[in-house]
Amino acid sequence: MCELLGMECNVPTDIIFSFSGLRQRGGKTAHHADGWGLALYEGKVARTFLEPTAAANSPLAKFVAQNPIKTLLAVGHIRKRTRGPVSLANTHPFVRELWGRHWVFAHNGTVRGARQLKLGRYRPMGSTDSEHAYCYLLESLRDAYPEYPRSRRDLWQLIADVGGKIGARGSFNFLLGDGRHLYARCATKLAHIVRKAPFGHARLADEDITVDFAELTTPKDRVAVVSTVPLTTNETWIHGEPESMWVFSGGLLRATLPSKTRSRLP
Amino acid sequence: MCELLGMECNVPTDIIFSFSGLRQRGGKTAHHADGWGLALYEGKVARTFLEPTAAANSPLAKFVAQNPIKTLLAVGHIRKRTRGPVSLANTHPFVRELWGRHWVFAHNGTVRGARQLKLGRYRPMGSTDSEHAYCYLLESLRDAYPEYPRSRRDLWQLIADVGGKIGARGSFNFLLGDGRHLYARCATKLAHIVRKAPFGHARLADEDITVDFAELTTPKDRVAVVSTVPLTTNETWIHGEPESMWVFSGGLLRATLPSKTRSRLP
Repeated sequence: MCELLGMECNVPTDIIFSFSGLRQRGGKTAHHADGWGLALYEGKVARTFLEPTAAANSPLAKFVAQNPIKTLLAVGHIRKRTRGPVSLANTHPFVRELWGRHWVFAHNGTVRGARQLKLGRYRPMGSTDSEHAYCYLLESLRDAYPEYPRSRRDLWQLIADVGGKIGARGSFNFLLGDGRHLYARCATKLAHIVRKAPFGHARLADEDITVDFAELTTPKDRVAVVSTVPLTTNETWIHGEPESMWVFSGGLLRATLPSKTRSRLP
Repeated sequence: MCELLGMECNVPTDIIFSFSGLRQRGGKTAHHADGWGLALYEGKVARTFLEPTAAANSPLAKFVAQNPIKTLLAVGHIRKRTRGPVSLANTHPFVRELWGRHWVFAHNGTVRGARQLKLGRYRPMGSTDSEHAYCYLLESLRDAYPEYPRSRRDLWQLIADVGGKIGARGSFNFLLGDGRHLYARCATKLAHIVRKAPFGHARLADEDITVDFAELTTPKDRVAVVSTVPLTTNETWIHGEPESMWVFSGGLLRATLPSKTRSRLP
């Protein structure tokens, strides 16, 4: 299994506090030592740092932690290999362009028989079930809409529905970013918190670090953080309902969408 | 204008010596201070480092130089803005997936009226003529071949021909990598060198650095390096013929293809 980390905000924020906690699970406090990745949006484009090695011992992960890049939307992942060997091609998050913007995807879980999902133009470069499912998801969006859809709600529901279809084949917890929204699907486990004024202290579960967000923020700031399991010990995280998907934008939870019944989909 | 750097080898090699020279032109010995990028292949996938700032002063560029990653194929670029603002989306090299592998592209020059080139699925995320031309090039390849073509020669000629068609609109010097080959098109200026045994010393033109490749290599190593202008002062570089394209693989120059007459293309 793997661990997911997402952040979506209304003002540019660095993800280093949360990433520091996640990083320790990449080979130190937990055994997710088969790769790590972090994608940070700047507008429609995501800058991605990937390594097929343990995050806890990675000079690049240390560099990223020491040279924070502020962003409105970030997706991170640390990998414990289940399907597919350890390689750069199998390291999440995966990135492709759709409708003139990057779509970034990270998966926790296993999709059985993913190769039976018929693909079009988006082709996997690695050998994971995750990347195959991701290519199928993007192809489904592109099939339904040649351009970015006018109705956000229709798009959100489509993503939830295709997620449900793929999720019928196993556990499909995912984070998906498009530069505008963070989509977070819970199949088995996922938790989120929205930090906003009045800000307080937060203490990491995986490392002896405490941060006082009141010193780093303004009263208007809102920061949503999503993770496989809560990253802090002294805050109240909201746990996801199985087979549902959260949509965040502007640092707010905009919608919680159940996957429609699987039989409705082809 | 911008500067290009490519490397293609038969054994994994780090590009740091050449990148060190190029980096100095990113704001120090020359005024290409509007961004830099470096893509390093691992099999079918390229890891990309990008920054919309001067390479000479960049902590990330310094990190990459101090933590060399060996690769068989690399494409680098430093940008002096001509079209499109300074942003991550406008920073070369550009990366897309085609036929289940990354294709990496960097451009030197200006393509007039690039937006008249009709696009399909590959869409620009930024606002440069370069990225528009790149999307057109990939769409042309995908249109001609639904899968990676069996005949390498046909693929090479198609790339040269589409390059010639786009090149009719301005100066289209480019580097294009697909993980197997490095394609290097000369419109106005491009130079290459193939380093092989017996290896000697090389002295950078832009920084007071000399390297003795004999200490770093084995007699079987072959390393092709392509650059806008020669990077070293004491080696013999081969200058490209305008409107021709080199193809490198295994550290060897495999072909030099003229663009076919432009009128043959639609």
